[in-house]
Amino acid sequence: MINNDTIVALATASGSGAIAVIRLSGKDAISKVDANFKSVKPSKYLVSQKSHTIHLGHVVDDKRVLDEVLVSVFKNPNSYTGENVVEISCHGSQYIQQEIIQLFLQNGCRMATAGEFTLRAFLNGKLDLSQAEAVADLISSDNEASHQIAMQQMRGGFSSEIAKLREELMNFASLIELELDFAEEDVEFANRSQFKDLVNRISFVLKRLIDSFAVGNVIKNGIPVAIVGEPNVGKSTLLNAILNEERAIVSDIAGTTRDTIEDEISIGGIGFRFIDTAGIRETKDVVESIGIKKTFEKMDQAQVVILLFSAEKFMTDSKRLKLEIEKIKNRFPQKPLIIIANKIDTLQEVDLNNLKSEFENLHLLSAKTGDGIDALKEKLTGFVNTGALRNNQTIVTNTRHYDSLLRALEEINKVKSGLEIGLSGDLMAIDIRQALYHFGEITGEITTDDLLGNIFANFCIGK
Amino acid sequence: MINNDTIVALATASGSGAIAVIRLSGKDAISKVDANFKSVKPSKYLVSQKSHTIHLGHVVDDKRVLDEVLVSVFKNPNSYTGENVVEISCHGSQYIQQEIIQLFLQNGCRMATAGEFTLRAFLNGKLDLSQAEAVADLISSDNEASHQIAMQQMRGGFSSEIAKLREELMNFASLIELELDFAEEDVEFANRSQFKDLVNRISFVLKRLIDSFAVGNVIKNGIPVAIVGEPNVGKSTLLNAILNEERAIVSDIAGTTRDTIEDEISIGGIGFRFIDTAGIRETKDVVESIGIKKTFEKMDQAQVVILLFSAEKFMTDSKRLKLEIEKIKNRFPQKPLIIIANKIDTLQEVDLNNLKSEFENLHLLSAKTGDGIDALKEKLTGFVNTGALRNNQTIVTNTRHYDSLLRALEEINKVKSGLEIGLSGDLMAIDIRQALYHFGEITGEITTDDLLGNIFANFCIGK
Repeated sequence: MINNDTIVALATASGSGAIAVIRLSGKDAISKVDANFKSVKPSKYLVSQKSHTIHLGHVVDDKRVLDEVLVSVFKNPNSYTGENVVEISCHGSQYIQQEIIQLFLQNGCRMATAGEFTLRAFLNGKLDLSQAEAVADLISSDNEASHQIAMQQMRGGFSSEIAKLREELMNFASLIELELDFAEEDVEFANRSQFKDLVNRISFVLKRLIDSFAVGNVIKNGIPVAIVGEPNVGKSTLLNAILNEERAIVSDIAGTTRDTIEDEISIGGIGFRFIDTAGIRETKDVVESIGIKKTFEKMDQAQVVILLFSAEKFMTDSKRLKLEIEKIKNRFPQKPLIIIANKIDTLQEVDLNNLKSEFENLHLLSAKTGDGIDALKEKLTGFVNTGALRNNQTIVTNTRHYDSLLRALEEINKVKSGLEIGLSGDLMAIDIRQALYHFGEITGEITTDDLLGNIFANFCIGK
Repeated sequence: MINNDTIVALATASGSGAIAVIRLSGKDAISKVDANFKSVKPSKYLVSQKSHTIHLGHVVDDKRVLDEVLVSVFKNPNSYTGENVVEISCHGSQYIQQEIIQLFLQNGCRMATAGEFTLRAFLNGKLDLSQAEAVADLISSDNEASHQIAMQQMRGGFSSEIAKLREELMNFASLIELELDFAEEDVEFANRSQFKDLVNRISFVLKRLIDSFAVGNVIKNGIPVAIVGEPNVGKSTLLNAILNEERAIVSDIAGTTRDTIEDEISIGGIGFRFIDTAGIRETKDVVESIGIKKTFEKMDQAQVVILLFSAEKFMTDSKRLKLEIEKIKNRFPQKPLIIIANKIDTLQEVDLNNLKSEFENLHLLSAKTGDGIDALKEKLTGFVNTGALRNNQTIVTNTRHYDSLLRALEEINKVKSGLEIGLSGDLMAIDIRQALYHFGEITGEITTDDLLGNIFANFCIGK
């Protein structure tokens, strides 16, 4: 799997900017850049420069000057990939980016595949596999919680926990396997009671990690919230009201709007994905009933459901509303439900008080004035168990890790019951080896080309 | 105008990428980063590092680790702005970009305004004004020709030509002004015949530069080409066919598509802006005649007009077509016109030959098969006088420079006729000073805050 060729790619976001960074990695990366670089200082070559230094000059194609650039030199093994790395910081026009990349492609470099820089870092032992995976998570993280988890994983928090358990287990495995060599003599090198303790400890940690996946997955992907309400009941005003102060921070920085995922909003550092749905009403109309079926599906997928009504409706049509709410509660008895009376700014004080006494747990709100928005945010974040996050515990967010942990736990449970029934060492050793295998899958001691291919295909090019 | 505060901005394109670069500049830039940077090597501070070195570490907010980053240190005056500059290369998630920028904003940095880094470079004497302007042109250049002109201007080709003339003129101005001090004695320090030579030389260069603006402006902004044709005549297929191989190069690199300026196409290194228009036909319908009025306006603005017909029409409706073409020729007698018979793939050989003999200068083409596309490209590039470009001569692309050159020429002409009629030194000195003033406007020896504000407002933030 290890390639010695020089790969090149744009490392910064695509598009025009003040500057762009083009990254090259490989044994010959520095000399390949030298061939097309003219330092402002005469006869200065990059290959003879120290690692971690920056040099001003021009990228030239024969005599044509492509750009004035800053070139950063990183020497094997002190680079991101562990190979020789050059980063060319050029003017950020797309034309220049293309021309420079094309130049190096013509001169024997190869376009990097998705995640290939990080793959090389892994293959060269700069990162273990779970750390490498965290790099992609870090780049795609868009709120505090997912950022914190990815950061912790990238810095090795998760791997070191797994690696420690793996090492202890490995020790016992060796002892037990040693016993097999002396099977005739019936010795016990591995203290069974200490081993029992370890297995219990491992099983406890595995369970905690597996449990953390529920919250981890939700944090990584955002918590799905279905908003159910009639078209003019103020859904988009509500979303904007929630969004407002959060986005205010964003819009201070040019070009950081996130229009493509318009309805994903970070509240208190946690991502919520708001799913807009049609309203629910009994109907005999075929088209509308398809709509309702879809609405129920969305509500089913959602972790939280918001029912949004106009406050006025609670007074003019309270009977129907109660029925409708009851119906939804019956259909989704386990689902956290927030019932909102919007537009309370249009009501009199006395009507508001009536509403409060008549409807239990009704969330009074005005998306227009912002009244009740903060309370709603608190309610939403309250649904997320952020205990583990607050306590800085390791949280599993990756499905692959989750699967391996589940399998490891399965094997550890076998070892556990083996210990209880006094299973022979040779049989127990098989289960332990199997558990060790699944641990190794997480950190990358055990890999296949297919597995690596799958993992790094999800990276962006240039990373 | 000089500020000593520390400015910060994202320098790379907005959006998510493998990495992003955040740039800080100012007297305290390095120490401000130190306050929130923890090097991987213990007790290593950026302020005590050499210029042009790179350091691995973490950006920290109190104890919270925001990201693992590479920090590049540039020390005054050896930096882009001429001040202390730090570039933080962080993971390219928008969340991380925001958090790091916010952190520095909270700690006493200020968000850079558009072009403020380059403005500081100009104020600190790292670039003259026309070079600074070329930076913006370079970033927005999207084809070989505009890139080459911007590059030449940024490297000082234009300024040095102006500066040399200015210096020679300045010498004569001093000599003539010196004569004024000795007015009683009727001496001549400035050799009038040498001076005449210089003025002629200056006037020649100015005229050449002024003339170059026609091609420069067209290269910078793209050559407007109006395509006139009925809706289903194959306009978009034609554009795609032209675009095809050019874009093939582009699409090799992820994310370099240019969908926003869909109809600007680079052919042979020169940008063409294709303006789609409605067809022309005599009509009494008010709505349609408005459309035709607009079409004529577009054709008027265009530098080249393409009339696109289906080849079949030339056989079935040849009389009307001839009339229509004649009408357009009469209306725009000076305008280069390309008359295209598209869809020749649907015709028989014999019909094609008939077409060729009946219609003079008809361009036969099939957008579908690509037949005739290369010939069309050649015709289009043939309309651009690229002589100056090929000969690597200075080309003026900037309206501001063009205006100053025109005014300088006006003054030089006054000096010229002054010399011819033997005008007195004191009056001539005024005209010379005025010419020098306009030269100075170009390179920035003469500026006002308003002028600078206008120029740099057109930059992107982060540059």
